[in-house]
Amino acid sequence: MQAVKVLEIKQSVFADNDEQARLLREELKKKKVFLLNLMSSPGSGKTTTLTRTIEALRDEFKIGVMEADIDSDVDAKTISQTGAKAIQLHTGGMCHLDAEMTRQGLEGLDTEGIELAILENVGNLVCPAEFDTGAVKNAMILSVPEGHDKPLKYPLMFSICDVVLVNKIDVLPYFDFDMEKCREYVKMRNPNATIIPICAKTGEGIDQWADWLRGQVKAWREA
Amino acid sequence: MQAVKVLEIKQSVFADNDEQARLLREELKKKKVFLLNLMSSPGSGKTTTLTRTIEALRDEFKIGVMEADIDSDVDAKTISQTGAKAIQLHTGGMCHLDAEMTRQGLEGLDTEGIELAILENVGNLVCPAEFDTGAVKNAMILSVPEGHDKPLKYPLMFSICDVVLVNKIDVLPYFDFDMEKCREYVKMRNPNATIIPICAKTGEGIDQWADWLRGQVKAWREA
Repeated sequence: MQAVKVLEIKQSVFADNDEQARLLREELKKKKVFLLNLMSSPGSGKTTTLTRTIEALRDEFKIGVMEADIDSDVDAKTISQTGAKAIQLHTGGMCHLDAEMTRQGLEGLDTEGIELAILENVGNLVCPAEFDTGAVKNAMILSVPEGHDKPLKYPLMFSICDVVLVNKIDVLPYFDFDMEKCREYVKMRNPNATIIPICAKTGEGIDQWADWLRGQVKAWREA
Repeated sequence: MQAVKVLEIKQSVFADNDEQARLLREELKKKKVFLLNLMSSPGSGKTTTLTRTIEALRDEFKIGVMEADIDSDVDAKTISQTGAKAIQLHTGGMCHLDAEMTRQGLEGLDTEGIELAILENVGNLVCPAEFDTGAVKNAMILSVPEGHDKPLKYPLMFSICDVVLVNKIDVLPYFDFDMEKCREYVKMRNPNATIIPICAKTGEGIDQWADWLRGQVKAWREA
């Protein structure tokens, strides 16, 4: 595997994260960089989904990926094999990224020429939901083995996400996962959320997800 | 389902959590209450494992359970059906419990007569690892669908756990999970960690886990 750049993220000094996020979003708009914030529990398949997403959209957009982790650089190495520009962000034990930390990541990535930047946030359903990263859209992955009750237990995460990818649908026969209840609970938290069942491993549903993301990028550019 | 007590936990005011944890551990020792802190990602099977644990040990120990969650009381309801004393703790959005918050939970539970108290921490591999709850032992569940690489990505969690339960081994055939690599990575973080493969759904491995826990309680009582 090729070496990847690893950036040690510094803790933010800004008290008003919402204002920092607003400023970052404005800047990115001027630079025409669409930022997607991708969140989930540990092990729900963020990196595999990202790999599939890049494969589906790399001919249309120049893509850059920031892989945030407390430690290790395995995810950025995996992503860099797709040909996308990738950087590993180390949070130094911090459980989320806020807007200023995301800005550090974007500077490390260098967004010159990048049209679609994706932040793979720290695997955690609690803290990342509390901090606006400056992204245009928030996406989250809920995997089938985690159970359909997660929107009941992590309300904020589901209420701030524009799209919920229900991943690992290939193992639905082996788990007590009720897709209808899942939809109902997600809609309870956020009636406007789009829900897309996928299997990142086999590629099922990735077309629909790529369509959604393509549509968001185009609508935002034209707005 | 019967109604369960729900306690809204207040944020701690103590700066020195390690000192609070030490004091709580001393107090619990005097009261002969063994406290176990159980941690994992969302959806890895904490509550099902707890149900099995109670079934295996309820004839030997009087058990009390604190179910910490940001919201909802589904877990405490499930646990109360086992006959164990159960209380739901709401963290009000907080991503972990520290020693003072655990003390609030124990007071709400009322440990009079309880020999084994179990705290089901918030589903999160990051923040709970940073705060000593005052527990005698830390246990964590890593479920097969999450992947064997988690000790690489969440080093602190694996380094502070005395025992790692590898849950959902019934679905091993459907996932690329390498048990040997898992053992190797866990041992890299904590050479003294005990690793027990289980399936909480079918009960496989629960005997071994109950043996471990029984042994810990007895050794601590006699120390």
